[in-house]
Amino acid sequence: MDELLDRLRRFRDDRDWAQFHTPKNLAISVSIEAAELLELFQWSLTGELECGHTVAEVADEAADVLIYTLMLFDRLGLDPKAEALKKIERNEVRYPADLALGRPGSVVKRSR
Amino acid sequence: MDELLDRLRRFRDDRDWAQFHTPKNLAISVSIEAAELLELFQWSLTGELECGHTVAEVADEAADVLIYTLMLFDRLGLDPKAEALKKIERNEVRYPADLALGRPGSVVKRSR
Amino acid sequence: MDELLDRLRRFRDDRDWAQFHTPKNLAISVSIEAAELLELFQWSLTGELECGHTVAEVADEAADVLIYTLMLFDRLGLDPKAEALKKIERNEVRYPADLALGRPGSVVKRSR
Amino acid sequence: MDELLDRLRRFRDDRDWAQFHTPKNLAISVSIEAAELLELFQWSLTGELECGHTVAEVADEAADVLIYTLMLFDRLGLDPKAEALKKIERNEVRYPADLALGRPGSVVKRSR
Repeated sequence: MDELLDRLRRFRDDRDWAQFHTPKNLAISVSIEAAELLELFQWSLTGELECGHTVAEVADEAADVLIYTLMLFDRLGLDPKAEALKKIERNEVRYPADLALGRPGSVVKRSR
Repeated sequence: MDELLDRLRRFRDDRDWAQFHTPKNLAISVSIEAAELLELFQWSLTGELECGHTVAEVADEAADVLIYTLMLFDRLGLDPKAEALKKIERNEVRYPADLALGRPGSVVKRSR
Repeated sequence: MDELLDRLRRFRDDRDWAQFHTPKNLAISVSIEAAELLELFQWSLTGELECGHTVAEVADEAADVLIYTLMLFDRLGLDPKAEALKKIERNEVRYPADLALGRPGSVVKRSR
Repeated sequence: MDELLDRLRRFRDDRDWAQFHTPKNLAISVSIEAAELLELFQWSLTGELECGHTVAEVADEAADVLIYTLMLFDRLGLDPKAEALKKIERNEVRYPADLALGRPGSVVKRSR
């Protein structure tokens, strides 16, 4: 993760782009890239890729989401891995395995 | 990253949730969490957090985006770090530092 | 509104597209088009359009959002105008003018 | 549509909210509400609503998308109905009925 963040900071600073990378604009960018990712599944009637799209395209768009998310963490002085681990721990409490077994999170929340 | 992925797989399997985690549903989840992150900036007139929201909330929502993005990579057998590095390399070619200096990516694209 | 809905139903049926227009896929499409709209503002540091984009582009992308939203209402047998009026009425109760004066909705909610 | 816009302008002005309603913030709000709408379908494995959610919730969230989209059109001096009709006409040219019959738009685009 540190190597990725180093590369991203250098990429940004070589282009003098920190001025555009306000937290708000980075959050917007995460949403835009997430939608480009979702577009690969738009009309699919199964849970899989829409016909004609490829896993390489998913990799490309998901990488954009990952990149902007890491840059937002970094811009606010947050450690992505530590925050993800903390969130998993909160989710383990919020969705106890026995209660959540085979039921999506939204159903678990309503059943409590 | 590997430690995170291990924890996420275990969390999912303890709840028998893989059945819901189609690639399409994971991509949808990335978009939903990205919007919850964006909501913290909704009415701000600067590039910073909306008054009353906290960096801890950003960490929490950005962690959700990160978690679902990693799960989507994993579901399709992709290595998140390798894909992000490849994307940075493509961006270095697409936005040459001299051409992109101080100009957002969208302007660089139109100027070519 | 009725004229618009008639045109949209005819457009869809001439192409035999109702099969792809599940409520879920229409909701996904609203999100995708909303993000294409947002992209026109991505790096702007003011509240206005990003330099180089035009109001005509906003009209084009916002029309896509409107179209898919109307199709989703229609697919579920809902009347868009009636639902919007009902929502405005709920918002009038939720955000009393005196309490909300000059304060964004999220702040009003937290202050109650 | 005009009645709706009148009500929305009055609602906004009674609360002195025009200051927050920059075009950028309205576009952000469309995306956020679109994601709240999508959340009702998040884990569904069919194209229908996720178990436990209701059509009334869809009406409520889709109304929010409609409201912010209309406010954005209005903020930029655009006529929503006229823009939607123009877009349908462009789509009729872009996706000829014979070529598009039974094939999603993304496939039609790639096949040309």
